[in-house]
Amino acid sequence: MEDEQEKVVIHGLVCPRPLTHYETVLLGHGSGGKMTRDLIEGTFYPPFENPALMRGDDAAVVAQPEPGRLAISTDSHIVSPLFFPGGDIGHLAVCGTVNDLAMVGARPLWITASFILEEGLPLVILEHVTASMKEAAGEAGVDIIAGDTKVAERGKADGMFISTTGVGWVPSDRAVSGANAQPGDVVLLSGPIGDHGIAVLAARGELAFETALESDIAPLNDLVEKMFDSCSSIHVLRDPTRGGLATALNEIACQSGVAIQLDEEKIPVRPSVAAACELLGFDPLYVANEGKLVAMVPAEDAETILQAMRSAPYGEEACRIGEVEAEPSGKVLMRTAIGGTRVVDMLSGEMLPRIC
Amino acid sequence: MEDEQEKVVIHGLVCPRPLTHYETVLLGHGSGGKMTRDLIEGTFYPPFENPALMRGDDAAVVAQPEPGRLAISTDSHIVSPLFFPGGDIGHLAVCGTVNDLAMVGARPLWITASFILEEGLPLVILEHVTASMKEAAGEAGVDIIAGDTKVAERGKADGMFISTTGVGWVPSDRAVSGANAQPGDVVLLSGPIGDHGIAVLAARGELAFETALESDIAPLNDLVEKMFDSCSSIHVLRDPTRGGLATALNEIACQSGVAIQLDEEKIPVRPSVAAACELLGFDPLYVANEGKLVAMVPAEDAETILQAMRSAPYGEEACRIGEVEAEPSGKVLMRTAIGGTRVVDMLSGEMLPRIC
Repeated sequence: MEDEQEKVVIHGLVCPRPLTHYETVLLGHGSGGKMTRDLIEGTFYPPFENPALMRGDDAAVVAQPEPGRLAISTDSHIVSPLFFPGGDIGHLAVCGTVNDLAMVGARPLWITASFILEEGLPLVILEHVTASMKEAAGEAGVDIIAGDTKVAERGKADGMFISTTGVGWVPSDRAVSGANAQPGDVVLLSGPIGDHGIAVLAARGELAFETALESDIAPLNDLVEKMFDSCSSIHVLRDPTRGGLATALNEIACQSGVAIQLDEEKIPVRPSVAAACELLGFDPLYVANEGKLVAMVPAEDAETILQAMRSAPYGEEACRIGEVEAEPSGKVLMRTAIGGTRVVDMLSGEMLPRIC
Repeated sequence: MEDEQEKVVIHGLVCPRPLTHYETVLLGHGSGGKMTRDLIEGTFYPPFENPALMRGDDAAVVAQPEPGRLAISTDSHIVSPLFFPGGDIGHLAVCGTVNDLAMVGARPLWITASFILEEGLPLVILEHVTASMKEAAGEAGVDIIAGDTKVAERGKADGMFISTTGVGWVPSDRAVSGANAQPGDVVLLSGPIGDHGIAVLAARGELAFETALESDIAPLNDLVEKMFDSCSSIHVLRDPTRGGLATALNEIACQSGVAIQLDEEKIPVRPSVAAACELLGFDPLYVANEGKLVAMVPAEDAETILQAMRSAPYGEEACRIGEVEAEPSGKVLMRTAIGGTRVVDMLSGEMLPRIC
């Protein structure tokens, strides 16, 4: 029978026993020499296997997609802990970049992944994370074609940071931008808000109660394709990550020079998220999501697009939450449940560091 | 008269006086809210100014280059200290990625930059680094079109890490890969080796003597274009960064299944680098470079390509250092100055952590 007392939890992952020196990341893994090659061939090539990556040159070379435009997006991921209910930093890195591409109407094609590892990180953690990246990339239909690994001395980084960049192809009939919202547009939201932020807080032990809540991390490119299949007139797409729905809508209101009017009662929030926010003094409008999108679409197409969203696995709970108006330009307003109207500002300061 | 005693050196940069809280990076700069927007608009947009970046969407959208292939490469940069003789992490991040693209024969077009900042980092450091990135990008002729900023709590990162990804276009008449070396090829090197590694060591105060040596950091895409202008038959290009020339040549010998025979006397090393290596017990063959390339080319074209290299600013000291042979496959051999032959292996372990 395994000794329960031997178990150790490292960066949120339960390891069955304390690890030896040679089961962890060493400075030599970042040397560029033999140990780096062993790490690449042993840990990165098997899950990410594809010809462009495994050619082993300084850059991956791929055939260009059909004529059209390219979309390029990058993100660093420093979430703490690395593992949390519903996912880990690997899912986050791939889905975050896939979603940023999808939010300009692009079909994600290729991802690069650059790892900054802290000396002493258990190699088993790296293996779990690369398995998650493989899983997320497989679901999104993208290849991880280039990478890099650096190792910082113990205490100079926090376990693992991952920077991902994505390249996608934008079909020529799509014109999606945060600058394209029009007065009269309907605002659609793909599901309940705040799950990711609260799930990570729970993993940090910062909630006073147990919750079964999981992060909503998901690749949204399939949902976006279903939306475009139903109607190509989508004006704006955005995933409300850091800063939450309130910040994403404020960005769009500024970029487009419009007002966004929300109905408080229509914004879905799970009871467990609402309870956690109540307890912690947070507003779910500012809590991060990693598998939701907000869209601005012409009123006449809104119902068609909403039905298309509801037919996709990550859009089943999609709903209308408001509309776009001309004035006051750059503002987000909310009709409250008791009948008033309040201004919803961008996030000020930092509520939840290292949520993504 | 300014008080000399007030000066502080932070991450290798001399600041004229101690800094206040509001002159440093705060957690709120990574929130995704107002402070992040202020940082983007105040610190990143002015140096990097271009339409794709400043549109402010989740991904940059750009027109595809002419038909052909795309090259994509990524790197994280964790050099310590951030500033060193001849450059800083900003030059390193841009040049490193530009060079990786050039090493597959690509013309670099776009760069993304993702910053992981430590809470408390002086904002003036970030401004110096973005100015360096602008300078390097300008010289290389690339635009920085997308970015991201995350902030880790004090003590959870070391000042600043930058991950860059580059996308370039490969003209259809180029077929460059580490797998393409052929027996009979001549090995060319663009200049003296080891400058970068020793310059960073000097900045760390690890040399017992003063040296005027500077890092060789440079974008090599113009040099590569001049080489291709002279002759399109180049088989292999590689920049010997981490792990040095010895490791780069071992990688190529393995990828191509060939032997590489070097002449020790022909490998250029500056006297100051040789002296530092002697003192520290290092072999310059394993010391990192950031502005050098090694090429394998057909013997009949070698002189033409060598003359083209010497006509470029970063190739003036280019020379022949050896040749490619069929056997022993996967090995790098060196004829020593005293007439023997020794095997030159890949780097084992880690000699100089955080050199790039």
